[in-house]
Amino acid sequence: MGLIDNINKLFDHRIRLGIMSILMVNDEVDFNQLKELLDVTDGNLSSHSKTLEKAKYITIQKSFIGKKPNTRYAITQSGKQAFKKHIDALEHLIKSQE
Amino acid sequence: MGLIDNINKLFDHRIRLGIMSILMVNDEVDFNQLKELLDVTDGNLSSHSKTLEKAKYITIQKSFIGKKPNTRYAITQSGKQAFKKHIDALEHLIKSQE
Repeated sequence: MGLIDNINKLFDHRIRLGIMSILMVNDEVDFNQLKELLDVTDGNLSSHSKTLEKAKYITIQKSFIGKKPNTRYAITQSGKQAFKKHIDALEHLIKSQE
Repeated sequence: MGLIDNINKLFDHRIRLGIMSILMVNDEVDFNQLKELLDVTDGNLSSHSKTLEKAKYITIQKSFIGKKPNTRYAITQSGKQAFKKHIDALEHLIKSQE
């Protein structure tokens, strides 16, 4: 059992960490809100959110508001559980340093 | 200023996070000790420690004990500073969720 076993590889990226953090406390966020909060490019946000969607940690819903495309993001139950476990592992690792 | 700006890209990997955590509290650790603590392969440990060495966050010293090669790792002053900043950013991100 290694020190980092409970650290989730899928969250080993600051953009994914940021997306999950934001979705933990906001029921639904759209593309532009996420982009602004994280200060990342469209391409980065797209690719990392797709990775989280594939893992079923978040859902991505595309629709139109008038003629404008709108993409909304939400966290899933399993995403919440996985992220909590990851945060616990990080806190454990950090505390082991104090 | 994005929510994840202070999260260091170089520490965006659990193995690097683990190496830094261990070296924060141990003045010097050798290859086998690190490998055991992290439960990772030789190749993974080598490649991630080299990345941290290139960034001047750790030093790697190779020598021989008798006929056996021995590789020792230590954190640098700038590594300590960078890691503390990273941990602060992670704690900030985590706390913003509570």
